[in-house]
Amino acid sequence: MKRNVYLNMKSIEAARQIMFDQFPGADESGAEDIDSVDALGRILAEPAVAALSAPNYHAAAMDGIALDAKLSFGASDDEPKILVSGKDAFWINTGHVMPEGTNAVIMIEHLNVIDSVKNGSSNGSSIEINSPAFPWQNVRKMGEDIVATELIFPRGHKITSYSLGALIAGGVFRVSVKKKPKVLIIPTGSELKSWQYANDNGLKPGDVIDSNSWVLGALCVEYGASFESHAIIHDEIEIIMDAVREATLSSYDMVFIIGGSSAGSKDYAKPVIDSLGEVFVHGVTMMPGKPLLFGKVNEKPVFGIPGYPVSAVVAFEQFAGPLLLKMHGLNPAAKQRETIDVVPARKIASKLGVEEFLRVKIGSVDGRFMASQLPRGAGSITTLTEADGIIRIPPHVEGIAEKEIVKAELIRPLAAIEDTVVITGSHDNTLDLLADQICRTRPGVTISSSHVGSMGGLMAIRKKTCHVAGSHLLDPEDGSYNISYIKKYLPGERVWLVNLVMREQGLIVAGGNPEKIKGLDDLKKKELVFINRQGGAGTRVLLDYKLKELGMTPADIRGYENEEYTHMSVAVAVLSGRADAGMGIYAAAKALSLDFIPVFTESYDLVIPDRFFHTEKIQVLLETIKTNDFKKRVGELGGYGTETTGEAILLES
Amino acid sequence: MKRNVYLNMKSIEAARQIMFDQFPGADESGAEDIDSVDALGRILAEPAVAALSAPNYHAAAMDGIALDAKLSFGASDDEPKILVSGKDAFWINTGHVMPEGTNAVIMIEHLNVIDSVKNGSSNGSSIEINSPAFPWQNVRKMGEDIVATELIFPRGHKITSYSLGALIAGGVFRVSVKKKPKVLIIPTGSELKSWQYANDNGLKPGDVIDSNSWVLGALCVEYGASFESHAIIHDEIEIIMDAVREATLSSYDMVFIIGGSSAGSKDYAKPVIDSLGEVFVHGVTMMPGKPLLFGKVNEKPVFGIPGYPVSAVVAFEQFAGPLLLKMHGLNPAAKQRETIDVVPARKIASKLGVEEFLRVKIGSVDGRFMASQLPRGAGSITTLTEADGIIRIPPHVEGIAEKEIVKAELIRPLAAIEDTVVITGSHDNTLDLLADQICRTRPGVTISSSHVGSMGGLMAIRKKTCHVAGSHLLDPEDGSYNISYIKKYLPGERVWLVNLVMREQGLIVAGGNPEKIKGLDDLKKKELVFINRQGGAGTRVLLDYKLKELGMTPADIRGYENEEYTHMSVAVAVLSGRADAGMGIYAAAKALSLDFIPVFTESYDLVIPDRFFHTEKIQVLLETIKTNDFKKRVGELGGYGTETTGEAILLES
Repeated sequence: MKRNVYLNMKSIEAARQIMFDQFPGADESGAEDIDSVDALGRILAEPAVAALSAPNYHAAAMDGIALDAKLSFGASDDEPKILVSGKDAFWINTGHVMPEGTNAVIMIEHLNVIDSVKNGSSNGSSIEINSPAFPWQNVRKMGEDIVATELIFPRGHKITSYSLGALIAGGVFRVSVKKKPKVLIIPTGSELKSWQYANDNGLKPGDVIDSNSWVLGALCVEYGASFESHAIIHDEIEIIMDAVREATLSSYDMVFIIGGSSAGSKDYAKPVIDSLGEVFVHGVTMMPGKPLLFGKVNEKPVFGIPGYPVSAVVAFEQFAGPLLLKMHGLNPAAKQRETIDVVPARKIASKLGVEEFLRVKIGSVDGRFMASQLPRGAGSITTLTEADGIIRIPPHVEGIAEKEIVKAELIRPLAAIEDTVVITGSHDNTLDLLADQICRTRPGVTISSSHVGSMGGLMAIRKKTCHVAGSHLLDPEDGSYNISYIKKYLPGERVWLVNLVMREQGLIVAGGNPEKIKGLDDLKKKELVFINRQGGAGTRVLLDYKLKELGMTPADIRGYENEEYTHMSVAVAVLSGRADAGMGIYAAAKALSLDFIPVFTESYDLVIPDRFFHTEKIQVLLETIKTNDFKKRVGELGGYGTETTGEAILLES
Repeated sequence: MKRNVYLNMKSIEAARQIMFDQFPGADESGAEDIDSVDALGRILAEPAVAALSAPNYHAAAMDGIALDAKLSFGASDDEPKILVSGKDAFWINTGHVMPEGTNAVIMIEHLNVIDSVKNGSSNGSSIEINSPAFPWQNVRKMGEDIVATELIFPRGHKITSYSLGALIAGGVFRVSVKKKPKVLIIPTGSELKSWQYANDNGLKPGDVIDSNSWVLGALCVEYGASFESHAIIHDEIEIIMDAVREATLSSYDMVFIIGGSSAGSKDYAKPVIDSLGEVFVHGVTMMPGKPLLFGKVNEKPVFGIPGYPVSAVVAFEQFAGPLLLKMHGLNPAAKQRETIDVVPARKIASKLGVEEFLRVKIGSVDGRFMASQLPRGAGSITTLTEADGIIRIPPHVEGIAEKEIVKAELIRPLAAIEDTVVITGSHDNTLDLLADQICRTRPGVTISSSHVGSMGGLMAIRKKTCHVAGSHLLDPEDGSYNISYIKKYLPGERVWLVNLVMREQGLIVAGGNPEKIKGLDDLKKKELVFINRQGGAGTRVLLDYKLKELGMTPADIRGYENEEYTHMSVAVAVLSGRADAGMGIYAAAKALSLDFIPVFTESYDLVIPDRFFHTEKIQVLLETIKTNDFKKRVGELGGYGTETTGEAILLES
C-alpha cells in the first residue's frame, strides 16, 4: 500500500526530499589516505593540522647583518654605533637562520663597513650604523606563515593548487580525502548501438548510437565521481536484472539504468527495481526528464534515467548529481549555476503543472541580456550544446511575456557570453565557417547564430535582440538587396551594410536529377513535391519574385505550403525523399551530394547597427571576413563569390 | 647593446607584450587525434563536422499509428475516417522508423480501434480517427537534431560533457585536439628539501621544503598543461645549466627555473639563460613577483620564477600561465577572474611604481562586500589559501582610502563568499574547531575568522565589517564579561551575546617550567622576558586587571612592550625561546607541549547583531555549537568548560 503513494508524480522538491531521506548517511561515505601532492581537486575527509611550522626557524628577510636590536639603540647620524662583525653583528643572507642571540637584521644598504674586508667571510671587521633597529625587523619569525598544530584546512575543504603549498609547507604530507563515489552506467534499448559498432558498420535506419552513457559518465567525473559503463543491454529484463543485482552487491555506490524508465510495456527499469528492491519515485513533474525513476536495491541508490539526451542530463543534474555531491561530503547544491536576469526575445508559452527547463541562447545587447528560446525537443542534444543558459519555468506559471525579466541559469560563463556576437536572420553556411575562423583572429570571441530568415533578422535589429542580421532581401522593383527593406523596416536607425558573400541560389534536387528538372517551370508538374522556405526568408522572397516573372502562382506548385527554416533542412528534405526539389544554395546541395540547378546570383549581407560597428568584437568579425584565409575557405565551398566581401556602406534612414 | 634595454624593469603589460612577441606562433602548436569519448576538457584543433545526421531516419515521436497525413484530411467527429491497419496505417512505437509512404503519427490516445485485435500485430483491423493529422506531426524528422556535414563545434571549442553527446550523435568519433603543452619544473636552492626527505628525516633550522614545484605543477594542470618535476638542484650553476639545456632540446614546451631569479651573487637563473640563449625580461614592476625572469633557449620559453611562494604564483598567473593558454589555442585571458566591487575595511597603503597584488578576505555584510587585507608577505602561502580575492593596486596609485569602492578579483566563488560567516575579534582555538565542525551541520557554510583582539571585534561590529565578534572583555568594576563594553561601544545596537566556551587563561612557560614560575608575581624577576598581547586584546585587559590587583606596573615586567596577535604566536614565542612566559590559554600551551600555570577562568562569547542572528548561516553556526559532538571536541582540547555553551541573551543598548 505504502508503495503506491510513491508512484504518483512528484514535484522536483518532493522527489529530492524522498531521495535524500532514503540515504541520510550519504555524507558519511568512505575516506582514503593519499599523498598530499596527489590531492588536487579532492575533498578533505579530516581536518588538515600543521605538523611543522613555516618557517621552522627565525629567518633573515633581507641581506645584511643580524644583531641583537638593543645593541643598536641610540644610534644616530651624529652618534653612530660601531659593531664588531662576528661578535656583535653577523653577515647574513635572505632566508638564512638568525644566529643565536640575534633578533633583527639591518639591510646591507644601510651599513657602512669601516674595514675593507669581503662580505660574509670577515671576522672582526667594524660596521658603522647610524639608526637603531627595532626588535624583529627584517626577520621572518618562526611560525609566521604556519604554526605547528594549527588548523590549515577544515574537513570539506577542496584542495586547490594553492592548498598544496600550505599542506606541504605545514608538513602535512598525507591527507585523508573522501573516496570518489563509483557509478555503474547500464545503457538499455534494442535500438542502441555502440559508437565503435557505428564506426565499423555504419548505421541502419532505426539504429541509435548510445551517447547517453558517455555524457552521463562525463557528468559523473565533473561531479567528482568515477564511472564504468556496462555493455549495452537490449530490451531483455532478465539481463538488466542480473546486471543491477550484481552491481548493487559489488563496490559500486550508485547505478544508472538508461532507457526504459517510462511506463510502457517494454519499459523494464521499474519492474527490475521493484523486484530487486523498492521504487520510491516514478515520474517527476519536470520537462524534460519526467520519466525519472529512483529506487533502492541492496541499500544502493538505483536511478532509471530517461533515454532522450536532454532528459537524461536534467535527471542527472536534478537528482543523481546532487546525491553524488552529498556522498562526496559537499553541499548538494554546490553545482548550482550562477543566474542572471534575462529578457526573452519573444513570448514563451509553458505548460501548467510541470517545471520546464527551457534552453536559451543569450546575447548581451545594449546592456541587456536577450534570451532566445531553442527548440524544446528533449531528443536534441544540440539544444544543450548551443545553449548559453536555462530558464526554469515553475509548474504554476503558464508562460513568460515578451520582455518580462526572468532568471536564467548560466551554462556558459558570463564573460564568454559578453564576447559573443549574436547574429540573427538568414542562414548561410559561410556563417559556420566564420564561427570557426573567428577564433584565429582572437580566441575567445565567438559567434552565436539563429536562423529566422532575413526579415526576422531585420526585426531582431529593430527589437534590439541581436548585433548583426544576415540578410539577402531582393527588392523586385530595382533589383537591389536589403537597402529598401532597411529604409522601410528600420526607420531612424544608422546601420552598416557589409557584404559577406555573393552566392548562387537555385533548385536542390536529388543526386543525378532523376526527375530531369531544368528550372522553376518544371515545378508545375503535379507529380513533383516542392519544399519551401518560411515566409520572410530571403530565398522565399526570391522564389516569389521569380515565380511572378514566370507568371506562376503558389497554387501551381505542390508542397509550396511545406516550410523549412534553413538551407540544410531543405537539402535534407530532398535527400530523404520527402521532397523532389527545394530552393536553396549550392553549398547545401554539395554538402549532401545532391544536384543543383542555378537560378540566380544574389548578395548576402550583414546588417550592423552603427552603435555596435565600432565595438571590439564586431571589428574582430570584420577583420576575419577580410582575411585571405576566410575567402579561400569560402571559395572551397563552391557557389560563392568573394569579390565584394567586406565592402561596407553606412545607411542613415 | 640591445639586450640591456630589456633588462630594465618592465610594467606587467610591457613585459607580457615582449613575451608574446617572442612567441608569435605559440597558438600554432601541435594537435593530436583522440577518441571523442576521451576528449572531455580538451580544446578542438580542427572544427568538428557531423558525419551522420541525428536522427538518421524519420522516427515516430509518439506511440500510435503512422500514416500519410492526406488520408486523414477531412476527418471530424461527424464524419470520422476509417483506416485499415497494415494498409493505410501502421502501428508504431516512439523512436521507431516511419514506414515508407507515411509522414505523420496519430497518438494512440486519439484512436478508436474498431476490431478488437492486439496492438502491433494486427493486419486488416479498422481504426477510426475523427480529426485530421497535419504532415510531419509527431515525427522526429531525419536531421532534426544534427544534419550530416553541418558544423557541430568550431575549432577552439572546449569539449564539455554535453559536447560528447553531440559529437557521438553526429558520428564524430575521433577529434583533433590541441596537444597539452608540457612543462619541466626545476626547483633550485641549497636550502631546499623534498617533502619525502622532510617526511623521513625531519627538518633542521635553515631547511625549507620545496612546495613551489607542486603548486606550480598543479597550476600547469589547471591551465590545461602537463608537467614534470626535476630533482632539486642546489646552487650549482653547471648542473642548472645542463638541466635547462637538456630540457629545451627535448620535448618540453616550457621550462621553469624556480629560485635564484633575482640579481644576487648566488642567483643563477639569469646567467644560465644568458649563456644558453637570451634574456628578454628581468624584473617586473609588480609585488609580489618582482624578480621574474623571462628568456628563450633553443626557441623554448624559459622562466625564472621567484622562490617566495606567493611571488611564484603571481609570476605564473601573470606570465607563464597566459602563454600556456595561448599555446593551447585559448584566449590568454581565459583564466581571468571574475571581479566584484568591494569596500576595504580599513585604509590600505601602497607603494608607488609597482602594481601590488593584495590578498584580502571578503565578507558579505549588509549587502556590501567588505575586504580585509591579509599580510603582504610574499613568503606566506596562507595569505593565498585564506584569501577570497585579490585587489590589484596600479603602479600610479598610492593607496586606497577606507570605504573607497575598488574591484577585487575573486579567488573563491561568490556563492561561497555569501555562505561565509565572518568572525572578527579575539582568537580562540575553538573557532578553528567550529570551522571544521560547521560543515557537518551544513556543507557549504564556512567560517572566516580574523584575529584583531576583542576590542577590534566590537569595532568591526560597529563598522559593519563582520557578522560575529569573538570577545572576552572583562569589566574590572563588576567582574562581568563584554556587556558593559557593548553598552559603551555599540550604543543603539541590538546584539545577542552567546557564550561559546568558558576557558582558562594563564601563563604559558617552557616545557618543564625551567624558571619555576608560579604566577604573575614572578614576572618581576629581571632575568625573565615576557611576551605580551596587543592593546585591546581581552587577554591584555585581563593581564592589566590582574597586575593592578597585585600592585604591579608595566615597568615591572621586561618585554611588556613586545606584542603578539594570537595565543598561538605567544606560545611559539615561548617555544622558540624568544620569551620565558606569556599570557594565554591552556590549549595553546598544550598544542606545543609547553607548561601552563592557570590564572583565571573567563567567559569567551560571540557578539552577534540581531539583524544577522536569524539568518540561515548564523543559525547553522548556533546549531553547531550546541551539538554534543562540538562540546566533546572542545572538552578534548583541555582548559575549557562547555556548561553554558550556546546560552544567548539579547542586549538592547
